[in-house]
Order: sequence, then structure tokens, then C-alpha cells
Amino acid sequence: MQAPICVGIDPVWDRLPASVRRAAVGSSGVPTSAAEAVDDIRRFVSGVLKAVVKHVPCVKFQSACFERYGWPGVRVYEETVAEAVAMGLIVVGDAKRGDIGISADHYAAGCLSDLPFAEMAGRAGPDALTINAYFGDDGVSPFRDAAQKAGKGLFALVRTSNPGGDALQSLSLADGRNVAEAMAGIVARLGEVPGCVGTSGYSLLGAVVGATKPRDAARLRELMPRQLFLVPGFGAQGGSADDVRPCFKPDGTGALITASRSVLFAYEKPKTEDWTGAIERAAVEMKAAVGRILG
Amino acid sequence: MQAPICVGIDPVWDRLPASVRRAAVGSSGVPTSAAEAVDDIRRFVSGVLKAVVKHVPCVKFQSACFERYGWPGVRVYEETVAEAVAMGLIVVGDAKRGDIGISADHYAAGCLSDLPFAEMAGRAGPDALTINAYFGDDGVSPFRDAAQKAGKGLFALVRTSNPGGDALQSLSLADGRNVAEAMAGIVARLGEVPGCVGTSGYSLLGAVVGATKPRDAARLRELMPRQLFLVPGFGAQGGSADDVRPCFKPDGTGALITASRSVLFAYEKPKTEDWTGAIERAAVEMKAAVGRILG
Repeated sequence: MQAPICVGIDPVWDRLPASVRRAAVGSSGVPTSAAEAVDDIRRFVSGVLKAVVKHVPCVKFQSACFERYGWPGVRVYEETVAEAVAMGLIVVGDAKRGDIGISADHYAAGCLSDLPFAEMAGRAGPDALTINAYFGDDGVSPFRDAAQKAGKGLFALVRTSNPGGDALQSLSLADGRNVAEAMAGIVARLGEVPGCVGTSGYSLLGAVVGATKPRDAARLRELMPRQLFLVPGFGAQGGSADDVRPCFKPDGTGALITASRSVLFAYEKPKTEDWTGAIERAAVEMKAAVGRILG
Repeated sequence: MQAPICVGIDPVWDRLPASVRRAAVGSSGVPTSAAEAVDDIRRFVSGVLKAVVKHVPCVKFQSACFERYGWPGVRVYEETVAEAVAMGLIVVGDAKRGDIGISADHYAAGCLSDLPFAEMAGRAGPDALTINAYFGDDGVSPFRDAAQKAGKGLFALVRTSNPGGDALQSLSLADGRNVAEAMAGIVARLGEVPGCVGTSGYSLLGAVVGATKPRDAARLRELMPRQLFLVPGFGAQGGSADDVRPCFKPDGTGALITASRSVLFAYEKPKTEDWTGAIERAAVEMKAAVGRILG
């Protein structure tokens, strides 16, 4: 059985294995050509996908790491996402888009759908997209409707894993909830409209719930019974196996645990040239760690 | 004197003037080639920029409308943003990005900075970027630091113009504020660190405050004395001149009023082949309307 884990693909050029970094660099140490930099990133991501595909069901692509190189980066994002989909992995596009009306429609079409153009023929988009629901109902519904039509999924940000998230998300409301809990209520409500809940009992509209706040996670699990949780923060950000336990339901379903840097850059410590081996071992270790939680 | 107005560049292929739409379409009426679709969009945007440059100081590019076409769309986004900068317009990249840590760094580098790669040599990025601050402090500070380094600006979403924004933003906190006011407090605090406030008294970290909630705007104006307000929702979304008045300070500074569809698609009603003329006239009218507010 596959463990409910996800490897985050957050490639940072400076941290790629030396053998992968072939782009010419200028005096500042930064690649001079975006195309060369993203060729290195493409090679790295391909290696990562091959190293983890036997051990994990899901990968999450961090759009920012590709957008950093402008349109050539976006091109490699699209190509490597499609490569992962073609390998049979479930792919989350972690682009955290958010807008309203026609703009939200356009983000859903561009970032979630399989693009219907000749240039991208046969190249699938991700299976799910992360979104930012600060806009409320009419910021979420265009994404939800597009996901339903495409047979795909969404994860709306509810509780982020960073310490600063408390500044807004932990504020107490007059009704006793906090802001993250109110967001959970919005997501739960928007996710249970007809046609959005599958035979599993889960909605196509899931939630991002950071692994660093176990007490909050338990409460959010109650408030969002139909939401799959995408749980970042495991590993490098400090979330432990105990921290993520409350994200699961008692039957062991309901959460997808994500680690990015602790797997992706596993060849850095201890330093090894066998970077794909190190990444594979880290994925296997993560699988075992999450497997132990689910006992 | 220039009026503090901004034209939103939200190109939607289906609504482009017939003479501009040259892309071949498939049976569903959608362009079959992304490159052809975005060539049409590029031609349209160039025409819009030339039509409005004499009348408005600023344009705002809606990233979603370009991302909808995948990487070829992002390429045209970058090229038309650079074209607008080269024409002397102040350009806001309306991409509403939000993330933390290295991902936020990467978004700031990709979406706000002038990309340092050979492929984009001499092509400037936008002067400012919209961001989503649901992440709190460590979601904003990477963007703020990058903006400071690049001499650019930011607008964080505080109060969005859509009706559904109330679902979260209008919730009452235990301390009597609502969520949007709490967000205003975060933005005000993060925007006043050393080096971020210019001689004008305004911070490089501004705020998005929708034009559709005048009462809220007055309160937010008090809470964010150092923030320039980017005010969408004027025109097509229903915001009137009276609605936007509270976004300004008594001295007439502090707000940048944005209209998108009412200017961009002015050739639709009344329908005319002279689309650049209609757009220019709509920009002139908008300038006069905002000028009247400021007396």
C-alpha cells in the first residue's frame, strides 16, 4: 500500500548537485541564461521523479521556483508537471493562485486544466492546485467549478505552516473561533455542494493545513470532515510525525503529508555525489515515518 | 497634472475587437494555438497602451489573462509589461502572489524584479506587484525586502472588491475590528520599517482596497496612513466616484483608482470598429470623473 505522502518539488538552482549544474554563471554567481538554468532544473526534476516514483504516490510542484526564471521557467514547469503525470504520479500544482471572476476562471484554466492548445498537445496539467481563499466565496467557486468540470482537485490555504501565519490566522473572532477556523468553515461549506463530494466522502476542495500546529490541526479536522488535508511543513520546517497525526481521521484517511527540502536536498547532509540515491532513501524514510503514524 | 488613475489590462481573447482576432479557432470556438492567441493579445495590448499613455500614468496587468495560455502567455505578459515600462507608464503586475520563505523570494524575483537573464536583457519587470498576505509577516517580508532592494512597490490585498469578500474579511474580531482591519494593521506595521517609507510619507508597501465598500474604505484610510491604496472596482464592478473618495487623504493623495473592463472593452457598447478611439475616450472620461472627486 502507498503511504499518503507527497514530495515537494521546490528546485533551487544554487542547491542542485554540482554534476547537474551546467549553466554558465556571471560574476554574481547567478546563471546568465534562464534557458540554461531551467535546463539544469529540468534534469534535476527528472532525476527526482525517477528516484521517488516507486515510493510515493504524489508530488507537489512549487511554481515559484520555476517562475523565478520567467517564461522559460514556466515552460519547464509545465513540461515537468506533465512528465510526472505521465509517470502515474498524482501531481499538485502549488501555485497558490487567488482572484475573482474572469481572472479566477483564467487561473483555473491556465494552472489546473490540461491546456487545449497545439503547443501543449498531450501534455497534462496537474491533478490539483493550491489556492488562496482570502477572497471568500466568489474567489473559490470559479476554481471549484473548473476543477469539477476537469475532474481535478483543489487545496485552499487554511492554516499555513510558517510562524508568521499567526499574525492573521490566530486572531480570535467575536464568536470564539479564530480566523483559520473561520476559513475552515468557508472551505467546508463551499466544498460540499452537489457533485463536489466523491464516493469516498471527501470533497474535491481540500485544505492546506500546516504540520507545525498539532492542536489547531485537531480542531480543523473536526471543522472540515470532507476535506483532504495537504500538510506541508513535515521535515525541514519542523513538523514531526506526532504533529501531523491529528490531520488524519481515526480510520487513517484524510491527510497527504508533504516534505520538500528534507527529501529534495537529502544529498547535502551527509554530502554525497549519489544524489538520486540520497533522495530515494529520504523518500523511503519518510514513507516509513508516516507509515508508523498510521500504525 | 496626471490624475491618479490606472487602466487594468485584463485581455480576454473572446472580447478582443474582431479586427484583432486572427488566431485560427477550433470547433469549440477557442484558438487552437496558444502562440496565435497571445499574438492577438499582444497586438491588442500594444494598441491599448498607445491609446491611454497620454491620459493615464499607470496600467495594471492581470497576470491570469496571460497565464491562461501557458508559457507563451507568460512570455507575452513579460514583453508587454516591458513595453509599457519603456513607454514611461508606471506598471503594476497584478499577480496576487503569496507564499513564504524561499518561495516568496522566488516569486519576488520572478514577478517583480527585472529578470537578470540574457533572454530578457533590457526588458524591465513591473514597478509594483500585488500580493496576498494571508500568510502574515513572513509571507510579506520577503516581498518587501526584494521590493526595497529593487526600488519597487507592493500592494497587499486588504479589502477586495467582490461581494464574497465579506465571508472572511467582514468577520468581527473579539477586539472589535474586522478581519480586513486586522489585515490593514499588519500591512501598516510591516510597511513602516526603516527604509520603506519615502519622502512623500508613503510606504513601498501599499494596499488593495476595493472601491465597492466606501464605509470600510474610510476606516482603512485611518488604519493605513502610510499606504497608497490601489483601488479596483471602479466602473464595471460598480464602484462610483463617491465610493472611492474615502480612499484619498484630505490632500487628495493616497489612492490610485483602477478601472479595467469599462475602459478596456469600451468599444463594445456602443459597438464600434474604432476600438482604440473608444478606449482612449473611456480613459479620458475616467480621468475627468476622478478629477472631479479631487476637485
